Amino acid sequence: MHKVIYDTDPGVDDAMALLFLHRHPNIDLLGVTTVFGNASVDTTTRNALFLKREWNIPCPVARGASVTFDPSRHERPWPTMVHGHNGLGDIDVPDTIDLPADPRPAYQFIIDTVRANPGEVTLVAVGRMTNLALALKHDPEIASLVKDVVIMGGNFYVPGNVTPVAEANIHGDPEAADFVMTAAWKVVVVGLDVTSITTMSRSYLADMAKAGGPSVQLLADLSQSYIDFYKHAVEDGMMVHDSCACVYVVAPELFDTIEGAVRVVCGGIADGQTIVKPDGRRFPPGDWDNLPSQIVCTGIRSQPVVDLIRDVILGKVKH
Amino acid sequence: MHKVIYDTDPGVDDAMALLFLHRHPNIDLLGVTTVFGNASVDTTTRNALFLKREWNIPCPVARGASVTFDPSRHERPWPTMVHGHNGLGDIDVPDTIDLPADPRPAYQFIIDTVRANPGEVTLVAVGRMTNLALALKHDPEIASLVKDVVIMGGNFYVPGNVTPVAEANIHGDPEAADFVMTAAWKVVVVGLDVTSITTMSRSYLADMAKAGGPSVQLLADLSQSYIDFYKHAVEDGMMVHDSCACVYVVAPELFDTIEGAVRVVCGGIADGQTIVKPDGRRFPPGDWDNLPSQIVCTGIRSQPVVDLIRDVILGKVKH
Repeated sequence: MHKVIYDTDPGVDDAMALLFLHRHPNIDLLGVTTVFGNASVDTTTRNALFLKREWNIPCPVARGASVTFDPSRHERPWPTMVHGHNGLGDIDVPDTIDLPADPRPAYQFIIDTVRANPGEVTLVAVGRMTNLALALKHDPEIASLVKDVVIMGGNFYVPGNVTPVAEANIHGDPEAADFVMTAAWKVVVVGLDVTSITTMSRSYLADMAKAGGPSVQLLADLSQSYIDFYKHAVEDGMMVHDSCACVYVVAPELFDTIEGAVRVVCGGIADGQTIVKPDGRRFPPGDWDNLPSQIVCTGIRSQPVVDLIRDVILGKVKH
Repeated sequence: MHKVIYDTDPGVDDAMALLFLHRHPNIDLLGVTTVFGNASVDTTTRNALFLKREWNIPCPVARGASVTFDPSRHERPWPTMVHGHNGLGDIDVPDTIDLPADPRPAYQFIIDTVRANPGEVTLVAVGRMTNLALALKHDPEIASLVKDVVIMGGNFYVPGNVTPVAEANIHGDPEAADFVMTAAWKVVVVGLDVTSITTMSRSYLADMAKAGGPSVQLLADLSQSYIDFYKHAVEDGMMVHDSCACVYVVAPELFDTIEGAVRVVCGGIADGQTIVKPDGRRFPPGDWDNLPSQIVCTGIRSQPVVDLIRDVILGKVKH
């Protein structure tokens, strides 16, 4: 079993990934932590509670950060053109959900849960890295107590999606991401190199909904405007960014990876860019020296990944 | 005929490119301007005069910049491990050459020559962009009087060679490069995406020397330690970086290109990185908006390029 804390800002593709984690028979979802990003943290927390209720997800939801790790960064508008004004593609969502959130802030929930399960917890983070950075800052020892960290974010040998060199999750809190990437724990970076070529078509999702009943129909419904948004880049479909990171947890063999120190640019025109120095490449002394080597995904078997997402969500994958 | 000013810091691969320009029947080499980079400008100017004398190159040599466009940048050590202590692979070169340099500084030579040949001059720049930036700063109108600018420098979808994201020429003077790339003239960027996969083997060069006599033997001699340096990346051969830019002038059909605004990162861990926003890619408002679209090389037919270099240097290419 993979014990997972899912750090997320639902978010349309976040929702699909949540259902995947909930329904995978070898994943024990210990908790959901929310973060600002695709919408405000009020909205993403409400959305997480909404999905918990709709999908009968038993684990707690802990509310996380509402501002960047360096609070002097100025806030940008929410990406409503991508995830809708309510963060879930503008389907009907109640203003409030009658379910309690965990009383602890997300970073404390992460610390407590990691300490209660030493060496066993995988942090799957698919939004800004703020909660992870705060957890590390408040309790640096968790770096050695976490099993691994799998993040959706960044881009290495392909362009970014919010600037020519930056991806949205990292660009949304570069200082947090640099802190997370350079810490002494094992980070797997699942970025645009692999997620931007892993797409699910509208009709494929419609077929899933037909087979999966109301819970999957909800997923299809909230994804429609997201698919509309992606029409400039995808032929009537959506990139399944966040689900790719979840698939890595259970099926890393579907990915090609390289290893190396990873840094994040903080400030300037390349703000939020992720940069890897592949192990073994020689450069003059520089900013990547003496940092832990992380794992960067550079290739993916997209169709098996998409098919696995479908099969897990439809309950066809058994222990 | 292509009227060319060659801005260079010889430099081993610079020397090969100089002989190519000198011997190409459709290139009228109007002048050589020198810049610091592979060695001090004293050394690169001496080397340019040495090669002018050895190869009977009739055009003037004008000495250029000795420090970065922003003089507050601190200087780094010369890359002696690449080009030798004397910039020409540590072959015997006299301390001084009994030939006069042009009395003007390089930037003024560029301005005067461009103004004397309006719309006709191609600037081929294969070192730091300092001289070009100074020429533009002193006489902004030349932007509209130059035919085009072809530079060797930068990297877009491949790693850098002096940092994980920066190439040496651009990294050596990022402010100059950003000024050049964003000016209203046509810049063609021939970077590591194409030059790092375009290599000439030691034996290929030896065969050239055998066929070409003493002038080509000199080229082979000064290239030997450079080939030794490249053993970590090339199987007994050398990347012919600078010659690729010269080949573009006469045979652009051997390259694949994209178009877009180009910026250079100035400062921070990505210092000296070149970044293109391909035309047609949509991003939120940002640092690449309302800038001229430049041409970025992303692909190359390497063997025809290398063969053309050989044939030109051996005098086999006719009008």
